Amino acid sequence: MNYPNGIKKEHNTSPLTYSNRGMSLESDLNETNEYYREINKAYIYKKPTPVKIVKVDYPSRDKAVIKEAYYTIPSTTDYNGLYDGKYIDFEAKETKSKTSFPLANIHSHQIKHIKNIYNHQGIAFLIVRFIHYNETYLLPAKDFLEFIEQEERKSIPYSFFQTKGYIIKDGYKPRLDYLKIVDRIIGGK
Amino acid sequence: MNYPNGIKKEHNTSPLTYSNRGMSLESDLNETNEYYREINKAYIYKKPTPVKIVKVDYPSRDKAVIKEAYYTIPSTTDYNGLYDGKYIDFEAKETKSKTSFPLANIHSHQIKHIKNIYNHQGIAFLIVRFIHYNETYLLPAKDFLEFIEQEERKSIPYSFFQTKGYIIKDGYKPRLDYLKIVDRIIGGK
Repeated sequence: MNYPNGIKKEHNTSPLTYSNRGMSLESDLNETNEYYREINKAYIYKKPTPVKIVKVDYPSRDKAVIKEAYYTIPSTTDYNGLYDGKYIDFEAKETKSKTSFPLANIHSHQIKHIKNIYNHQGIAFLIVRFIHYNETYLLPAKDFLEFIEQEERKSIPYSFFQTKGYIIKDGYKPRLDYLKIVDRIIGGK
Repeated sequence: MNYPNGIKKEHNTSPLTYSNRGMSLESDLNETNEYYREINKAYIYKKPTPVKIVKVDYPSRDKAVIKEAYYTIPSTTDYNGLYDGKYIDFEAKETKSKTSFPLANIHSHQIKHIKNIYNHQGIAFLIVRFIHYNETYLLPAKDFLEFIEQEERKSIPYSFFQTKGYIIKDGYKPRLDYLKIVDRIIGGK
């Protein structure tokens, strides 16, 4: 079982209450990170969406309006920051699939980024929500990268998350206490 | 004197050669970071420019064209990454002023960000180039934040950089070896 000690106990009042509100993983993580900042536990934030700006108008002296731009393929992950003096870096994705997480969701540049973070002693991972099961998993970079190197498959089976990943239970504050899992990964707490 | 040991010696062939090529600080830093990645010394990258996207067109199935967007005030710094297992974070700016670095160049959100990184044990600093003098300084977060707290001035005097900052000498590869200064700040090497 991959449940971290204590998490079950702490949220035993109504484990499914929050997961059914239709909140997106992104808003759950933003609220969680805001809470971590409030209590000064960690400083983790979301990076801007990368766009390539092609045309900019200046209708008035101080105002620039971007009139043509394109989404570019992200070369890094969405979230990073500091926890307990350590570099934290992760990508978060939801999937509607019941059986696997399609790797098309993670660009090759992002995989390289995760590898770089891991090799330079940062703490990197994926957070993947299987919407159908109302389950959110943290998958450490080590296991993710091993899968990529060993398998030719274009998706990571749900069972792999059950075996190698860690369930992040829903809560109220924080909504997704993923740092509890990070504690386990780092220190075997 | 704030010259790090050895830097003078290493680049004693033609210290002014590269600084006169009219390269921007940004391109110098991008080349430097690329070099650090190549030799696997550090993994430091530039964040995307933050924009608020207002209108997106889909002229064809897979193509999204952003038709209206605005630059937003950056809430974080431009560069971050990992060096020697440590979180590195900095903002880089050029100024044409001969006497001071105007604080209007750094937004209040960015100052808060630098403070957060510093408080969470990350290594944060400013890199400021005084174009007139062909000089590039690294100013540690600690000194920068002390200045902000103690002074009411709207700019940091050039002399403050001379006293508290560290000159980053121009080179060929890497073009701006700022990690040599980071070594000194961390370990007194």
